[in-house]
Amino acid sequence: SIDADRLLSRIRALGDIGRDSGGRLTRLAASDADKAGRDRLVQWLCEAELEVVVDRVGNIFGIWRDAGNAANAPVLIGSHIDTVIDAGIYDGCYGVLSGLEAIQTLREAGTALAHPIAIAAFTNEEGVRYAPDMMGSLVYAGGLSVDEALATVGTDGSVLGEELRRIGYAGADGPDFSKPHAYVELHVEQGPVLEREGVPIGAVENLQGISWQRITIEGVANHAGTTPMSMRRDPGYAAARVIGFLHDRATTSNTPTVATVGCIAFEPNAINVIPSRATFTVDLRDPDTERLKAEEAALAGYLQDLAAVEDMTIMTERLARFEPVTFDARIVGIVEEAARMRGLASKRMTSGAGHDAQMIARVAPAAMIFVPSVGGISHNPREYTADVDLVAGANVLLDVIQRLAAD
Amino acid sequence: SIDADRLLSRIRALGDIGRDSGGRLTRLAASDADKAGRDRLVQWLCEAELEVVVDRVGNIFGIWRDAGNAANAPVLIGSHIDTVIDAGIYDGCYGVLSGLEAIQTLREAGTALAHPIAIAAFTNEEGVRYAPDMMGSLVYAGGLSVDEALATVGTDGSVLGEELRRIGYAGADGPDFSKPHAYVELHVEQGPVLEREGVPIGAVENLQGISWQRITIEGVANHAGTTPMSMRRDPGYAAARVIGFLHDRATTSNTPTVATVGCIAFEPNAINVIPSRATFTVDLRDPDTERLKAEEAALAGYLQDLAAVEDMTIMTERLARFEPVTFDARIVGIVEEAARMRGLASKRMTSGAGHDAQMIARVAPAAMIFVPSVGGISHNPREYTADVDLVAGANVLLDVIQRLAAD
Ligand SMILES: NC(=O)NCCC(=O)O
Ligand SMILES: NC(=O)NCCC(=O)O
Repeated sequence: SIDADRLLSRIRALGDIGRDSGGRLTRLAASDADKAGRDRLVQWLCEAELEVVVDRVGNIFGIWRDAGNAANAPVLIGSHIDTVIDAGIYDGCYGVLSGLEAIQTLREAGTALAHPIAIAAFTNEEGVRYAPDMMGSLVYAGGLSVDEALATVGTDGSVLGEELRRIGYAGADGPDFSKPHAYVELHVEQGPVLEREGVPIGAVENLQGISWQRITIEGVANHAGTTPMSMRRDPGYAAARVIGFLHDRATTSNTPTVATVGCIAFEPNAINVIPSRATFTVDLRDPDTERLKAEEAALAGYLQDLAAVEDMTIMTERLARFEPVTFDARIVGIVEEAARMRGLASKRMTSGAGHDAQMIARVAPAAMIFVPSVGGISHNPREYTADVDLVAGANVLLDVIQRLAAD
Repeated sequence: SIDADRLLSRIRALGDIGRDSGGRLTRLAASDADKAGRDRLVQWLCEAELEVVVDRVGNIFGIWRDAGNAANAPVLIGSHIDTVIDAGIYDGCYGVLSGLEAIQTLREAGTALAHPIAIAAFTNEEGVRYAPDMMGSLVYAGGLSVDEALATVGTDGSVLGEELRRIGYAGADGPDFSKPHAYVELHVEQGPVLEREGVPIGAVENLQGISWQRITIEGVANHAGTTPMSMRRDPGYAAARVIGFLHDRATTSNTPTVATVGCIAFEPNAINVIPSRATFTVDLRDPDTERLKAEEAALAGYLQDLAAVEDMTIMTERLARFEPVTFDARIVGIVEEAARMRGLASKRMTSGAGHDAQMIARVAPAAMIFVPSVGGISHNPREYTADVDLVAGANVLLDVIQRLAAD
């Protein structure tokens, strides 16, 4: 079994890197805080005597191989250490540090395996600063060219490639394996299912589709006091209509569709000026491809009608679009089996969040392991998973990779 | 008559001060751009040999008096030179520069008057950076203590008093008259009425009430992908409901009530995070005191119900509250008479915008003169008034102050 204290103390230590003066944890991709987190991770990888490799998009790999297995592709354990704004400490970091812990445990036990084992911390999984999300793993899996990724302009106007150079994580060729033997990702559920059902292990068999758009509505700035209601072309009001439409439609639909408007800005954003422009993001998700398409079409239709009725220009920009993914059935079975051997109940389930596993599934058999999130809360400083569940998940990961690396 | 070329060239010169690299004019109160505008104005006041006085809240006065009238209170012409974000060039500046032009014209003609004439450029009329609006004239009229005004924290976290010191416009005691003999303000209408009716001069007899609030809704940040719609407490959605309520209620009311949401912010403002908090401003106006109160009460009731239904905390902060004002009937009559003598049609009307005249009316007989705004557009770079209308308005101002200063 893994060293619970070592794992938990590392999770807490990494969770203290990138706190602002108000105590809020924010380690956006390729920021100074991300650099500090990366530096600490690399230090741990070096202490564990792993071979450390950074690729051009900043993905960090720590590889354990020996003379006996070096010719084979490694089993890869991955996740990310970038965070959202005002984040919890588990999202992503738990998976990376559990992977490191599993490798160290096997190595210290002198276990000989047919395949090397590697861990990866993928760049910009959250997608908060640079869209799309899961960018590092998408590049690794060949779904986005590295040059395109490096040219991405962030919400703050920064360019990812420049920021990676600035923080010293613009690497070179990357690891010598382009397709892992298998891929496993351990993550907090971030949703309410496991806690509600009292099940400690989720064997994740699929992952819903994700559609991200940025919508810009242009109206006419005018004076808040002198402009009669009938003469207004107020894009802030139009944006409010769209937010209401998305929320009410998803809420009353009786489907698992979720719709979120997380970012908004008005221009010029002055108290006595009817906005000239409203910009906001839409995050739409559904486990069913056809339904996700239908939701996107419904939004497009609504926007078209709204533009006509309100006499405004509405522009839509796609920021991310990922189809639902089905994970490798054999690995899902191995996760269930590993849980059972540890005396832990498990449950096959869907992932509501996007994960690097979703990208790596394009090039290798992949699956995920979830542990419960208290209150189903994530992307929030109150994100929390009990230590006993963290340790149980890491032990299941240990058993799963040992099994996958054996043949 | 006034020197049209001198007036128009000054309006254009001041309108070029404070443009950003994109050509957008923004001279927020007590900013570097405002300092540059103030410096230019003071230079013109000095060239016109006026006595220049700056008071503690940064109001600039230019006084013309002679040995014969120095014992009497001056007739005051006022307005402001601060702007909104991405502003037009006429709002405020037209009134200040026309006042200067009128004084220079009278002086150059050797006119002897029973009262001195002064012009004032009041600090922070727009209220965009520091609330409330009309702050400088409110302080001058005794409606707000100067210390309270100087302690105001702006939208950018700055403190007005510190900013005034920084730009060199934190003055001392101010002018030696606390109550002008009379007050007149010339302004572009900023609304559609005069242009629609083809009338060049508005004799403004009253001004609607203004209610500004900042509303903060607190929900629960959570993951956009994993949180079922039924488990969300999304303050962004709640804010959208309020924006829709305000707009639809004002639009369908058959009253002149106007309601505007000009500023909004979500926290943490990330694409895949349900916001934890939404903050927005509400600008409510009505010429009728009781109706304005009823609109405020309707909003408060809506917020209370919403907080209960959506299980959120809603906080309301008052940023400005001004009752409707009725101007001095004698001066309104003088404006009409002056227009008629110049062969110009005039119309008694209400002001939709707030103005310094509204504050000064507390301590002196006051009224305003409006000229047409093309398309009723203001607080927008497309704000425009034809030169012929600008000149006509300034000549009416000239005649009105000459008459007011005569006895
Ligand atoms: N796991 C996780 O929070 N990923 C971020 C990408 C997303 O699902 O929005
Ligand atoms: N005239 C003018 O635009 N004043 C600004 C204050 C307001 O009415 O919002």
